[in-house]
Amino acid sequence: MRISGLQTAGTPGDVEANLRELDAACARARASGTELLITSELFLTGYDIGDRVIELARTDLLSPVRDLARRHGLALVAGLPEHEDGACYNSAFFVDPTGTVLGRHRKTHLFGELDRRYFTAGDRLTTVVDFGGIRIALLICYDVEFPENVRAAALAGADLIAVPTAQMEPYAFVADHLLRVRAWENQVYIAYVNHDGTEGSLTYVGRSSLTAPSGEVLDSVRHGNRLLSATVDPAVVARARKDNPYLLDRRPDLYASVPEDRAC
Amino acid sequence: MRISGLQTAGTPGDVEANLRELDAACARARASGTELLITSELFLTGYDIGDRVIELARTDLLSPVRDLARRHGLALVAGLPEHEDGACYNSAFFVDPTGTVLGRHRKTHLFGELDRRYFTAGDRLTTVVDFGGIRIALLICYDVEFPENVRAAALAGADLIAVPTAQMEPYAFVADHLLRVRAWENQVYIAYVNHDGTEGSLTYVGRSSLTAPSGEVLDSVRHGNRLLSATVDPAVVARARKDNPYLLDRRPDLYASVPEDRAC
Repeated sequence: MRISGLQTAGTPGDVEANLRELDAACARARASGTELLITSELFLTGYDIGDRVIELARTDLLSPVRDLARRHGLALVAGLPEHEDGACYNSAFFVDPTGTVLGRHRKTHLFGELDRRYFTAGDRLTTVVDFGGIRIALLICYDVEFPENVRAAALAGADLIAVPTAQMEPYAFVADHLLRVRAWENQVYIAYVNHDGTEGSLTYVGRSSLTAPSGEVLDSVRHGNRLLSATVDPAVVARARKDNPYLLDRRPDLYASVPEDRAC
Repeated sequence: MRISGLQTAGTPGDVEANLRELDAACARARASGTELLITSELFLTGYDIGDRVIELARTDLLSPVRDLARRHGLALVAGLPEHEDGACYNSAFFVDPTGTVLGRHRKTHLFGELDRRYFTAGDRLTTVVDFGGIRIALLICYDVEFPENVRAAALAGADLIAVPTAQMEPYAFVADHLLRVRAWENQVYIAYVNHDGTEGSLTYVGRSSLTAPSGEVLDSVRHGNRLLSATVDPAVVARARKDNPYLLDRRPDLYASVPEDRAC
């Protein structure tokens, strides 16, 4: 399956402008044979936009995404804030080409004051979706930096981890080094799709990437607005797991005894 | 504390020659102010030496290491095969400058046929030693490639992970990428001390390294016999954990529900 990721500076706080940009990206992605397009974290609204993220979370952000998916015949992973029962979540939705929501992930690992001021943490470690013969796990930004999360996704059978992110300076290490290791140690594809440019107090590192289960970077960009693309093949995942049998060689009998995993 | 790691091709199967090389390395290390010298995996005997590793495991390999530590006034992490109750273990011993054994780690994650043919897996995830104001965890080779192990060591309060290894082609990815990420995601120093050259069917990747809690490589070598050195400072670990609070931001409440961690 051909997948794409949209790195862009977007238009912070302007949902209509971001939907127009997504519409254009869908058209380009579809024309190049892509079946799944992944956006950045809170792509629809912007990330560091102050209280406005709460206001926007109370509006219907999902319907226009479902319309775009249907209109372009394309699956989308869309980052947007989600309001429910008085709480606000930093979420990513998986919408299939019929406009149906197949899965929703709420960020479980909140990052610093920026996240904690506005968002409640999700209580499900990872969300897995089956689409077009591929099993796709959703994680958001800081989530992927914890090896526990990507391991959980791999153990749940994920071929691909889709990671909308809003990664800023000085954390380029994550984009430059950590993602390849996460892919290698779990033999999964990772799509890491970031913002670029500046927003509020943040300077984003750009550096979106699509990485293979071998740790090889299939497509990447440093700065600028760009559509990244690569092919995801479960047979490549299976081969990588033969070459590199970490999942088989784990010792869960011993991991269960790590004290803090019980106590906290 | 100043620490060193000895990368060398050694003399496979010849314990006396390896002890002579260790003696000379101890003298050089001590002269340069080192307090702890770390060797490679099964340094005393060699790793891919066939059935001879079992024969040698039945001899007294530890006493000459304790003598060297005492004579040079230097702590040693020494890799050697260990025989007990009919089983053979791939072990690393921490010997303090008085010649006292403070800890022993048995490799818990056996690598392929090479390990499984001769060794029984250890049943303790990590071994922690307090020496000179530093908490040091011992892991061996393949052990460090599993994020679960380094996390367990960090949660046990390790400042430094000492990793005797025998890393061969085609696994240079581990030395080139994975160790920096293990250090970064746990804010620990990692000393990764490898063989070099060829031995039996193996071509070692060399590439030993001493890495800081920030992921910065403090000393490294590609090929050749060399003593690597760096300074380990718990205050640097504490600062890194403030800058990068992964350990605080973990969600052990969620990790406990990963199904395979219970079932396997």
